Amino acid sequence: MLGSGVFAGAFQRDWAYGIQDADGKKFFSELERIGYLGDLPCRRRPVAAYIELHIEQGPALITEGKQIGVVEGIRGLTWLRITMKGERDHAGPTPMHMRRDALAGAAQAISSMREIPGKLHPDLVVTVGEISVSPNAINVIPGQVTFSVDFRHEDESILARAEELVLQTTKAAAEWEGLEMEVDRIGGSSPMAFDAWVTAAIDDACMKEGCSSLHLWSAAGHDARYAADFCPAAMIFTPSAGGKSHAEDELTTCEDVFLGGRILGQTLLSLAQQS
Amino acid sequence: MLGSGVFAGAFQRDWAYGIQDADGKKFFSELERIGYLGDLPCRRRPVAAYIELHIEQGPALITEGKQIGVVEGIRGLTWLRITMKGERDHAGPTPMHMRRDALAGAAQAISSMREIPGKLHPDLVVTVGEISVSPNAINVIPGQVTFSVDFRHEDESILARAEELVLQTTKAAAEWEGLEMEVDRIGGSSPMAFDAWVTAAIDDACMKEGCSSLHLWSAAGHDARYAADFCPAAMIFTPSAGGKSHAEDELTTCEDVFLGGRILGQTLLSLAQQS
Repeated sequence: MLGSGVFAGAFQRDWAYGIQDADGKKFFSELERIGYLGDLPCRRRPVAAYIELHIEQGPALITEGKQIGVVEGIRGLTWLRITMKGERDHAGPTPMHMRRDALAGAAQAISSMREIPGKLHPDLVVTVGEISVSPNAINVIPGQVTFSVDFRHEDESILARAEELVLQTTKAAAEWEGLEMEVDRIGGSSPMAFDAWVTAAIDDACMKEGCSSLHLWSAAGHDARYAADFCPAAMIFTPSAGGKSHAEDELTTCEDVFLGGRILGQTLLSLAQQS
Repeated sequence: MLGSGVFAGAFQRDWAYGIQDADGKKFFSELERIGYLGDLPCRRRPVAAYIELHIEQGPALITEGKQIGVVEGIRGLTWLRITMKGERDHAGPTPMHMRRDALAGAAQAISSMREIPGKLHPDLVVTVGEISVSPNAINVIPGQVTFSVDFRHEDESILARAEELVLQTTKAAAEWEGLEMEVDRIGGSSPMAFDAWVTAAIDDACMKEGCSSLHLWSAAGHDARYAADFCPAAMIFTPSAGGKSHAEDELTTCEDVFLGGRILGQTLLSLAQQS
């Protein structure tokens, strides 16, 4: 999303050029090396519409038995990093009632977070993907634990309420275990609804092709998010086997790829005729 | 406990000599370098009794307001390493009901383990000190989590029952979350009761010195554990401020150190007179 971000003005071009990978290779020199630097300035210019064809990266189309996803927008996202501090102690002689075990508290919080979507909204997702424990030794009661929380939804008010529940849950666990707690909001983006003119054109294309479709929201970020800042935009999803992506068993059948291509072509044609 | 282990025959001398630290320094050459290699062979020989003076490393003496701990034995210990395997997936598009989140399952298990001592025995301690999560990324549902469990008690049947409850609890969490589970028993030692003749001599010494005392079990390993294999043995504990040890704020007052020394002297004297 670096190119679309610079095009949309979300990032400075020179900041993007200067980004380095783990081996110290710069984005600018790598673009030059592979002949992708180009002559056109990467910045906003008039665009009639933007349509992105992508695999779903989720299981909704397969589960519902639909051929094409008409993407209504991109879900909002909040990233928190939560640190719980207790007291590092020897795992042997410290009685249970005198412990302030940071991992016991974090485990209680993480376990309760799994229940938040059920209480709030079925489409809300909450994930704790990252955890680090100090000192992380088999015979030492953990003194400190830091973990991430990732939650996503299409409705900003649900996102805000989810954040409240995550903090409430964590605070209750910290108090129960006698821990101190710090919360950093390390990232986030608001939900972005796509353009109804573009999604209607995708719907028409599906009708013309005689294929089944499902309206849904994307939970992952895409270039279309930045494009939607400067022109009418939407996305077309094709089914992902098992909902898998960024993994070796990612798979979209050739049939689905061809159908996606036809829907993209039909949509472009119909938008072009209307512009 | 390396020297006492070799003396008692629990370890081979040459295995001990060959042990290396993180910098590759060998135990044998370091003993030589600091002049501690010595001439006497390190192996079992007749010993009338073994008494070890040590800080408690726990809060019992301070909490009970007692001056000397008469140690009745060393608690048994079980170490498990548990791996839970789920399915690595994108944190965005994977709905909650389709997840097999290894960290959500592990968190539920760890959180429930905190409650086992309350159900089984107040002196039982259960600790999860170590955890590793794969892939450990903020936006990926964890596919695999491995954690350690350390539990200790003086009664072998309580230890066995604790192991059952730990496995039951973990299995229930794994089933709830749809995870596979592997358990390795990576270490353990049986409870070791000290000698009543030696503890009685420590009791007598406390009476003669007019100091208060408490009978207790050590939850940490000590040289006395190996000594008890070949001669009557026991330990004397002095209070540890805040129950802390192996930490910068470890503290036993000079007064308590002197008293511990006097009790040790009195005990040696009385055992020598009886031998």
